[in-house]
Amino acid sequence: MIFTSDNAAGIAPELLAAIAKASEGAAPAYGADPWSERVEALVRELFEAPEARVFLVATGTAANALALASLCPPWSAIYGHERSHIERDECGAPEFYSGAKLTLIGGDQARISPEGLRARIRIGTSGGVHQVGNGALSISQATELGSLYSLEDLRTLTTIAHEAGMGVHMDGTRFANALARTGASPAEMSWRAGADILCLGATKNGAMAAEAVILFDPARAEEFERRRKRGGHLFSKMRFVAAQMEAWLTDGLWLRLASHANGMAERLAEGLRARGVPVLNELGANILFAEITYGLHRRLTAAGARYYIEPPSQSETGPEHAPLTIRLVCSHETTEAEVDALLRAFGGG
Amino acid sequence: MIFTSDNAAGIAPELLAAIAKASEGAAPAYGADPWSERVEALVRELFEAPEARVFLVATGTAANALALASLCPPWSAIYGHERSHIERDECGAPEFYSGAKLTLIGGDQARISPEGLRARIRIGTSGGVHQVGNGALSISQATELGSLYSLEDLRTLTTIAHEAGMGVHMDGTRFANALARTGASPAEMSWRAGADILCLGATKNGAMAAEAVILFDPARAEEFERRRKRGGHLFSKMRFVAAQMEAWLTDGLWLRLASHANGMAERLAEGLRARGVPVLNELGANILFAEITYGLHRRLTAAGARYYIEPPSQSETGPEHAPLTIRLVCSHETTEAEVDALLRAFGGG
Amino acid sequence: MIFTSDNAAGIAPELLAAIAKASEGAAPAYGADPWSERVEALVRELFEAPEARVFLVATGTAANALALASLCPPWSAIYGHERSHIERDECGAPEFYSGAKLTLIGGDQARISPEGLRARIRIGTSGGVHQVGNGALSISQATELGSLYSLEDLRTLTTIAHEAGMGVHMDGTRFANALARTGASPAEMSWRAGADILCLGATKNGAMAAEAVILFDPARAEEFERRRKRGGHLFSKMRFVAAQMEAWLTDGLWLRLASHANGMAERLAEGLRARGVPVLNELGANILFAEITYGLHRRLTAAGARYYIEPPSQSETGPEHAPLTIRLVCSHETTEAEVDALLRAFGGG
Amino acid sequence: MIFTSDNAAGIAPELLAAIAKASEGAAPAYGADPWSERVEALVRELFEAPEARVFLVATGTAANALALASLCPPWSAIYGHERSHIERDECGAPEFYSGAKLTLIGGDQARISPEGLRARIRIGTSGGVHQVGNGALSISQATELGSLYSLEDLRTLTTIAHEAGMGVHMDGTRFANALARTGASPAEMSWRAGADILCLGATKNGAMAAEAVILFDPARAEEFERRRKRGGHLFSKMRFVAAQMEAWLTDGLWLRLASHANGMAERLAEGLRARGVPVLNELGANILFAEITYGLHRRLTAAGARYYIEPPSQSETGPEHAPLTIRLVCSHETTEAEVDALLRAFGGG
Repeated sequence: MIFTSDNAAGIAPELLAAIAKASEGAAPAYGADPWSERVEALVRELFEAPEARVFLVATGTAANALALASLCPPWSAIYGHERSHIERDECGAPEFYSGAKLTLIGGDQARISPEGLRARIRIGTSGGVHQVGNGALSISQATELGSLYSLEDLRTLTTIAHEAGMGVHMDGTRFANALARTGASPAEMSWRAGADILCLGATKNGAMAAEAVILFDPARAEEFERRRKRGGHLFSKMRFVAAQMEAWLTDGLWLRLASHANGMAERLAEGLRARGVPVLNELGANILFAEITYGLHRRLTAAGARYYIEPPSQSETGPEHAPLTIRLVCSHETTEAEVDALLRAFGGG
Repeated sequence: MIFTSDNAAGIAPELLAAIAKASEGAAPAYGADPWSERVEALVRELFEAPEARVFLVATGTAANALALASLCPPWSAIYGHERSHIERDECGAPEFYSGAKLTLIGGDQARISPEGLRARIRIGTSGGVHQVGNGALSISQATELGSLYSLEDLRTLTTIAHEAGMGVHMDGTRFANALARTGASPAEMSWRAGADILCLGATKNGAMAAEAVILFDPARAEEFERRRKRGGHLFSKMRFVAAQMEAWLTDGLWLRLASHANGMAERLAEGLRARGVPVLNELGANILFAEITYGLHRRLTAAGARYYIEPPSQSETGPEHAPLTIRLVCSHETTEAEVDALLRAFGGG
Repeated sequence: MIFTSDNAAGIAPELLAAIAKASEGAAPAYGADPWSERVEALVRELFEAPEARVFLVATGTAANALALASLCPPWSAIYGHERSHIERDECGAPEFYSGAKLTLIGGDQARISPEGLRARIRIGTSGGVHQVGNGALSISQATELGSLYSLEDLRTLTTIAHEAGMGVHMDGTRFANALARTGASPAEMSWRAGADILCLGATKNGAMAAEAVILFDPARAEEFERRRKRGGHLFSKMRFVAAQMEAWLTDGLWLRLASHANGMAERLAEGLRARGVPVLNELGANILFAEITYGLHRRLTAAGARYYIEPPSQSETGPEHAPLTIRLVCSHETTEAEVDALLRAFGGG
Repeated sequence: MIFTSDNAAGIAPELLAAIAKASEGAAPAYGADPWSERVEALVRELFEAPEARVFLVATGTAANALALASLCPPWSAIYGHERSHIERDECGAPEFYSGAKLTLIGGDQARISPEGLRARIRIGTSGGVHQVGNGALSISQATELGSLYSLEDLRTLTTIAHEAGMGVHMDGTRFANALARTGASPAEMSWRAGADILCLGATKNGAMAAEAVILFDPARAEEFERRRKRGGHLFSKMRFVAAQMEAWLTDGLWLRLASHANGMAERLAEGLRARGVPVLNELGANILFAEITYGLHRRLTAAGARYYIEPPSQSETGPEHAPLTIRLVCSHETTEAEVDALLRAFGGG
């Protein structure tokens, strides 16, 4: 009953097979291999973006940090949500790579509010050289709380950003989950909605370690390549990252894996609601936040359930009936049996 | 009627004379001069800190940024107030020099609230390597809103910081004003209240360009010196910065200049209150915030009054009776006549 | 006939199997998995270093840059050879991570000369704050030219470094090849010879992407972990990097793979010498430099041989009989048949 | 008998008077003052560059580091001479500000050789993303050894740089001395000779602390201003830096001061040659290198002469007749009497 994170799961069999197959024989290093070339072609086709450039890295933190560094100068602000991954979980990597200042905006369900964004842009504009300027907007789709922006939400925010002269970064660690949930096309949810760079994550959805940074504006490619190398993120045997990404994007596997994870989260949510356990978030992807008591927490843990309390700054122990917020994440490997076992551990039902 | 800032003022005559006198004859460069030596001795005596090391720079931004860089590693958080100078007015210099992440805390009158600090420290502690750790606490005395921390306030905050393993930086751009207002001793308001590094500013209080960074722990000196040089802040003709600082600290001049500026702000505040103009801040130093109407603003400007609207992200124009917040700053050069002229421009009284 | 680099080879079957096996079931993320634990235990045993801490990353550039950053402050010099990988092939990553200044030293066969090192240390010592101080020494074993330092050479250099207060980084991208060539023990060639941090590379010797950074002084561990995360080099599914490293280090596989690659390079060298082709370097590992004519180069290329000219700043075309230096690298996958085919393409023999 | 450096001298009376005069009354801060405006106008006129933008800072290190940062991205190389100030005397400031890699080139008399530059550019071009690209060329006029580039030398180097897509930085710490020596016009020796940014130093030639960074391409201005603030180099009371620069540039004072210093160095050189003391450098400015014995060094020191041994990595003591290289610098304040006193201390004559 492992619901800690979708990165606790293994590698999807199709990707494992692709790695093994790619290992047959020699191949050019550093991305000059046929797998990398095919991945770029695949992404261009799937995203209806024939000019896009695609660069692979192996962690989401590297993808986000490098993308942001390519969008804004060191003397500028990156506007992101208070509960974004770039703020909470990357140990300052976006600032390290970009030199820019992560500036936080609030908003319901981890979604940036347009008013909040406009207010911060006014501050960035009015301060002259005394204040960092408007640099880039960073949006997560799905968000860290598992919610989604509507396509209209996205366009509203990206229009504000573009009008202020900023580029838009989309953290798409769970972009496939968002697509699977909404049925939107990849293009609709990315560049047509105003994203300039999309970090498309496969690692949390079946890969071993593979993230595609999609530059919809090819003019940013040269800078990005230099930054990637300089950050130590250019793999010599890049074909093995590319082979994962190719298999993942082929024949809709990415969406099937995401759809499965989403479905397991829905099954869990329904079961929890049926047991009267409050589900706190909109279910946009494969992540679920629930409010339980410390007493139940102890019983779940004793029964072998694994998950995180969120935020981790909550006290880890508390009185029997005191409320505690927990996060439950389903993956491409989560089974109905596991979900049902967890629900039984919650009791009732 | 210049009330824009205390940095619109000139050089106090004593400091100008000291610069001229220091120019007679050759002297060793880069701080190996007798003026620099005497400044260190003076600071040690005035602050009752015989081991302290004192380094001079020429801007407050350099002082703050270098001090913070010496207190914490790049993978940590600097906790500061939302309305602090390091956040609002230094274009990311603290982050540039330290590599650390400026993390904001709220609190009334630009004073960091102990609860807010504790809450952020819990987040910094709970995140493991995924989050920047607890790095340093930055306190401004006086604050950017012209208010003061009591000595007890300071001890409460610095104790929290020290218990979390953090060093404490005090931005003392207007430290002399705070001393003059409260009568506390330099030692009481700095290291005895828990400050590890004090950036003691003279520029806004009579100097041409002179700031002393006081390291109460001499072990930080070597790193600081290297950082200063590497930042381009080691003056070759350092004697001229030192000569200003020496004159400023001699025979209580620093406190007399500050006391004058504070007194002018009080006179102004009394006059405004007498005219029914709301003064918004506690008067801890030489800065005053007032709420006026846009109509009055236009009349004051037409009459030759100069000041900033604050925050500058407010709209610069508005309806006759709509409220506008303005900032008025007095300096060591402000005269009673100027204050009274401004009050007359406000009308009434 | 691919002799471009050992990173053109695939994954050794044992490592591929280990990745597949590690994918069975869920596991804790970010290195809190049993594979990572076992790798640390294995390294400690093999290197007779029970206190060492071991951190995994996926590229050699990341390993080197993070290791160097942990050894020296930003205002210091990293002393390395003019033809080292950190100077020539990492696009400034060591400087990006450390902030330090890569300062070059000459010496035969890409080995740092003790005299050169001493001379640079004198400069670093004499400059006061005007010059970067002595930061760290970086040694490659084997070197970029495929040569080796003797154990005595290493001790001489590391003693000079330690006496100047510097830590020692060993770039061990081809450390296994050096061990296999000399029969020295891992401990003898690393910490007993004065290395403080060893970057032990598996990627060029059978792995998909796996490098172990071995900190012989565990006090550096906390900083290293933070830097790794902040650089985006902490894998969520770390078990797959660890599984490669575990398989590689188990039952001497690393040395067998290295020994094979070394043997192929020897076979090639013998064949070249027999054909009168000058081999330019000492054969310490699996790399060979040869001098050929542009005419021969064209015939080899036409015959399907692949290799790099070195340095790449040489003209890529030239007169029939003009000399050209080329680099030939054998890998764990190179076969006798391939070597013999290449030799036939050279003609004669 | 102070011949250590031109920065051991005081402030020229005209500049001191300008500071005092500028202190009368209030003025806008941060460079929005009339002095700053007049300086820009003066520079534009003197340099026949009506579009140039001029920014003031207070140290040469800040000027050079900020200028270089504005010319090249972090993943590139700055080409400079092995004995340049940016390499030897700025503790890594150029790298800190730019993120770029200082890459050294040799050449006689501290002048970069065109062949050396071309060779490095070939390396920068051939390495792809594995190597830092060609970033910027940095030339010192006069050089650190007191020699000069001819206008033709300058054009040769800057043409090579421009053809490789690089901008050109000119370190003009002693640019006035070079003008005074050669009679070239400011335009001829700067932008007409291919410089894109000139750091024009007044500090070593009569100022207290004033350096003008002249951007011949105004498009770089916005970035420069942000970088200056972010580095802590924007003075609040900027008028006092500007007032120095204005006085210095007015009525040819800068050239008169430089001419005096140059003349004193010539007088000293003639005296030394007459005494058989070898003068090692071309006399392009106010710096002179001489070879003496350790015995003479001890006698000169005992007689009160002050100067530096150069390079400082030379042993500070040695046998009576062993040779030692020393550096002697004359300033705007050096008198004939001082020069003659020093010559007498040399004996003979």
